[in-house]
Amino acid sequence: MFLECARASCQHVGGSLCVGLDPHPDRLPARFDPAIGGLRRFLDETIKKTLPSASLYKPNAAFFEERGPEGISLLKEIIDRVHEVGRPVILDAKRGDIASTAHAYARAAFDVLDADAITIVPYMGEDAVVPFLDRGRFVFLLALPSNPSAAAVVEHGSPPLYERIGRMGLELEVRYPGQVGLVAGATRPAQAASLHRLAPSLPWLVPGVGSQGGSLAELSEAIGGRHEAWVNVSRAILFDPEPAAAAEMWKREIGVWRNA
Amino acid sequence: MFLECARASCQHVGGSLCVGLDPHPDRLPARFDPAIGGLRRFLDETIKKTLPSASLYKPNAAFFEERGPEGISLLKEIIDRVHEVGRPVILDAKRGDIASTAHAYARAAFDVLDADAITIVPYMGEDAVVPFLDRGRFVFLLALPSNPSAAAVVEHGSPPLYERIGRMGLELEVRYPGQVGLVAGATRPAQAASLHRLAPSLPWLVPGVGSQGGSLAELSEAIGGRHEAWVNVSRAILFDPEPAAAAEMWKREIGVWRNA
Repeated sequence: MFLECARASCQHVGGSLCVGLDPHPDRLPARFDPAIGGLRRFLDETIKKTLPSASLYKPNAAFFEERGPEGISLLKEIIDRVHEVGRPVILDAKRGDIASTAHAYARAAFDVLDADAITIVPYMGEDAVVPFLDRGRFVFLLALPSNPSAAAVVEHGSPPLYERIGRMGLELEVRYPGQVGLVAGATRPAQAASLHRLAPSLPWLVPGVGSQGGSLAELSEAIGGRHEAWVNVSRAILFDPEPAAAAEMWKREIGVWRNA
Repeated sequence: MFLECARASCQHVGGSLCVGLDPHPDRLPARFDPAIGGLRRFLDETIKKTLPSASLYKPNAAFFEERGPEGISLLKEIIDRVHEVGRPVILDAKRGDIASTAHAYARAAFDVLDADAITIVPYMGEDAVVPFLDRGRFVFLLALPSNPSAAAVVEHGSPPLYERIGRMGLELEVRYPGQVGLVAGATRPAQAASLHRLAPSLPWLVPGVGSQGGSLAELSEAIGGRHEAWVNVSRAILFDPEPAAAAEMWKREIGVWRNA
């Protein structure tokens, strides 16, 4: 379901931009009061303004959790709002725990919040992933995070760990076709190219573009071909004085990433 | 703060048992209604009955998140309750995201929920850990999870990844003395023994005992010495028909794990 919706949405919008909803509390424009009502208005306005350019939205659970119970209510409202305007939702929650706990996290993400896809940290192996797939929704395994210090972990070993995660994704894809993708940061083009060769069929969620400085041109050049991907931009759109224009600029910059 | 409180609590109680609060919704005893009120009564009763034997409590965020906003309110209530009865709280949340997001998760865990310590998945490296340490609280890095499928990740490479995580813990301990521990599952005694040799000063949170079948005797024998640790038991106490007796039995079984 997620895959078809996300593809249809990209086609409809004409670009593979995913707008990340990471409302850092100290960065809300001054005209929004910092309480929950202001946050709601800020997010509503952001969705309205970026809709012509955004194929997907990716709320980041942390910025809602830090508001306590009413933040969780708002997260659910925002997911409903995005569905109303016809876009799929990736919940960026980076969950990763053993099977029985993963089941509970899956119920939270899919039954309570109604996200269409979720990001998962595969540190605990397949056990931590399967409960999410069993619910028929889509999972992005965190293979290549975009932040610098992740290198110590994801490039560990030979072959490096991120390739092991790519293989885990392929193995899961066989059992859950059309439900598995990878997170592949734009800040690591050479490693993303290895992931592309290893698992060309697994779509990517690409963070690290925008404020984090990753270059799509370098990424494209490194992989030397097309790879289905949604490219996430958060702060560089959210906190731009003109979010509509910023989203449109990023949509053009990104284009349609598609390997089919 | 956490370390002193946890040590004092172990001394007071006479054992290193941490009671895990993982209220699987389909395993609540029949006399508790499955709605939030029943869950609250179940947890209150569990805390009351296990208090003479429990040095710490470890609520698992997933089983509260799956109840939506009112689950988060209940989680805060339960943490407050545990503090009222004089025990420290480890929030088992396995968070792990990049710096700005980690700051938001840290605010959620410490400012909103008031946990004393948290479990962290170090897949994204130090960036994902430092924001929690910067708030002066205690962090358990997930080094050796207790579930079988984690082997594919944590034993990856040579030296294996979990040793790299142990080293990361040591490096962080230098900058944040008394704030860093490791999760070391009882189901992996040989690997835990390596962690003990590598980082004898980092206290452990030990899952995998009880329902998961890890043996404390094997763990003790493998490490061949003493290592400060809190041993977590969740389901085998929570869902025992006699939680008070089960907790006391586990307290005796565990004894005081201490290397000082």
